[in-house]
Amino acid sequence: MTGGVGGEVDPAVRRARAWLSRAVEPGSVDLWRFVEREGALAAATALRAGTAPPRVQALAGVRAGEDASAEDLRRAERCGARLIVPEDGEWPALPLHCLTVAVAGEPAATGRQTERTQVLVPPMALWVRGDRPLDQLVDRSVALVGSRASTAYGEHVAGELAAGLGERGWTTVSGGAFGIDAAAHRGALAAGAPTVVVAACGVDRPYPAAHSALFARVLEDGLVVSEWPPGCAPLRHRFLVRNRLIAALTQGTVVVEAAARSGAQATAHRAASLGKAVMAVPGPVTSAMSMGCHELLRDVERGTTLVTNAAQVLDRVGALGEDLAVRPARPETARDSLSDVARRVLDACPVRAGVPPERLAAVAGCDVLDVLRVLPALELADLVQWTGTGWRLAPTAGAPG
Amino acid sequence: MTGGVGGEVDPAVRRARAWLSRAVEPGSVDLWRFVEREGALAAATALRAGTAPPRVQALAGVRAGEDASAEDLRRAERCGARLIVPEDGEWPALPLHCLTVAVAGEPAATGRQTERTQVLVPPMALWVRGDRPLDQLVDRSVALVGSRASTAYGEHVAGELAAGLGERGWTTVSGGAFGIDAAAHRGALAAGAPTVVVAACGVDRPYPAAHSALFARVLEDGLVVSEWPPGCAPLRHRFLVRNRLIAALTQGTVVVEAAARSGAQATAHRAASLGKAVMAVPGPVTSAMSMGCHELLRDVERGTTLVTNAAQVLDRVGALGEDLAVRPARPETARDSLSDVARRVLDACPVRAGVPPERLAAVAGCDVLDVLRVLPALELADLVQWTGTGWRLAPTAGAPG
Repeated sequence: MTGGVGGEVDPAVRRARAWLSRAVEPGSVDLWRFVEREGALAAATALRAGTAPPRVQALAGVRAGEDASAEDLRRAERCGARLIVPEDGEWPALPLHCLTVAVAGEPAATGRQTERTQVLVPPMALWVRGDRPLDQLVDRSVALVGSRASTAYGEHVAGELAAGLGERGWTTVSGGAFGIDAAAHRGALAAGAPTVVVAACGVDRPYPAAHSALFARVLEDGLVVSEWPPGCAPLRHRFLVRNRLIAALTQGTVVVEAAARSGAQATAHRAASLGKAVMAVPGPVTSAMSMGCHELLRDVERGTTLVTNAAQVLDRVGALGEDLAVRPARPETARDSLSDVARRVLDACPVRAGVPPERLAAVAGCDVLDVLRVLPALELADLVQWTGTGWRLAPTAGAPG
Repeated sequence: MTGGVGGEVDPAVRRARAWLSRAVEPGSVDLWRFVEREGALAAATALRAGTAPPRVQALAGVRAGEDASAEDLRRAERCGARLIVPEDGEWPALPLHCLTVAVAGEPAATGRQTERTQVLVPPMALWVRGDRPLDQLVDRSVALVGSRASTAYGEHVAGELAAGLGERGWTTVSGGAFGIDAAAHRGALAAGAPTVVVAACGVDRPYPAAHSALFARVLEDGLVVSEWPPGCAPLRHRFLVRNRLIAALTQGTVVVEAAARSGAQATAHRAASLGKAVMAVPGPVTSAMSMGCHELLRDVERGTTLVTNAAQVLDRVGALGEDLAVRPARPETARDSLSDVARRVLDACPVRAGVPPERLAAVAGCDVLDVLRVLPALELADLVQWTGTGWRLAPTAGAPG
């Protein structure tokens, strides 16, 4: 337990966030902005008094008149869970920062908020069941996601990936569902590694119920995490909200198996938009459960990386981890791929009148043979052109240097 | 038979090229350049007289004193084959043009010629067995290649791809080997579509011998093609030379199955360097025979396209076919991905002193809310920056417009 760190937080603030986590459905941009501006305590007080801005007040609706927060905290404690809040040292602030960035890009006017607006927002608080500190477990973590209707192949690969990640000290995060999720959690457990279930319902109610034993094993060395207070049901719309938390908490998401046109693409694109690495496992082209992965991998614009084992997953997330900022890559030009000699020859080419290769060699400071060797490539790249009497820069090439 | 078109060619030229195809091992840059300069007839005469430039003469060596050309042409005729030469109307000049371009990029000095130099050169002539015109068959063709030690999965996919291509009027080209090659040829035959075997030995000797019946079926509606005269053996080095012809004759190459670090990568990269589409079929990550394909697909720099069916293959080669020239893509900048409004706001940003969003809205001609909506994205893309008092262009963004 990390109660020591959590103990520094004003109990009233924790209680306020507990109340907010039930009063307003998680995933609301307007509530998050209101709490950021007013503080959790003042925001909760205003909502309970009915004095919050109308748009925010409407989010709570009738729930503003109810207060189950003390009972929720007691229920949590009874099942070995705790509520962690952004004010806690255990709060996974670094991975969740991507959501703060994402929400900053959302418009203020309700009419302009898309469905995405309801989702790409940091959590108000996290109900965490299990003894390990959340921030440490997700510090080096990867999400393994995929279809519930998985094949033996997909389950095998998910298990192998999770075990391989666990052996390398990485945590596997998934949703605790049937199929790929369960295989991933089991693979981590088999490797003696901790694993995290991010649930779309209260941490006291295993969903699906058939996974009660699995969740009990997860809790021995891992965590079950949720934005919803104990007792909350896994309502359908909560899975979309939950999925963005899986993407946000981890360094990258691996889609292991997914049907064509399934939610896997949306999950992957959301992870990518949060600056997280997105990976997919290929499979037999004859398997319907690999079609979603292949669709992702064919969409080269999106940059999904094909991975076949845990080492390749860590290659991908390791590289991104070194540079958490989302920066557009420097555009590569035809010039970038040139050899040193080719660049020197290109720089030697005049803009207007063509000159013979001998002249280019003299200017570039290389052998005439080198010039003759690189000119065809430069011409193919539309960087130089033959005027009939000599070589010059192609009009499209721009100035050298 | 297309003897009518071929009949226009001077028989002495055809005989000279027949002689050259045996006198000098196919794949020599120096011979090709000599023949280009002198013409086939004069080149052959010079080589037989021992008066060719020493480097070229050395290529023929003792073979310069032998002449089996009349016998080769007779042997070809006996097995239903013919020799087609660049002077023939049936010569597949358009697909093979990529080799003329490639050889132009090779250095003149022997010492500077790499192993590649021995390979990326147009054929001197092609021995063709079968009745269909070669140029028409390869006009819309795809190469399916892969391991001889294929799995049932790989053979199934190769067969399905070839059949799917055949049903759409495309020819499958392969090497006639065991494994993926044979499955590809058989898939085309099963769809009633023509298929082309490009051999690394004489067209009169089926290699492997176990494929005699397969080749006989291929010849009913397809072709067996070779650069080597009848009777020539499938020597090891000839396969590399042959492979470049498979890549050159077709619009694209699909690697169906390949072991890790196999020749598949080299084959694929050669096809790409010739401006042809390169594709790979994914498979189970647990299959050693798919590892080569996955390596290709992970090498994003090279741009191998993942394909799972014939339609996706044609998507890829169709797109390239519309623009045969090898042009570097226009470099994409962060700006390119911006919305119209974002671009207008970016253009409204001053270089030095920061201005408030209201001012940007006035200049850009849009709503202040629109400005507020796009600024975070512009900032994330390092295009604008907050000075503390207002927004201005980021120093790295360059001038707008």
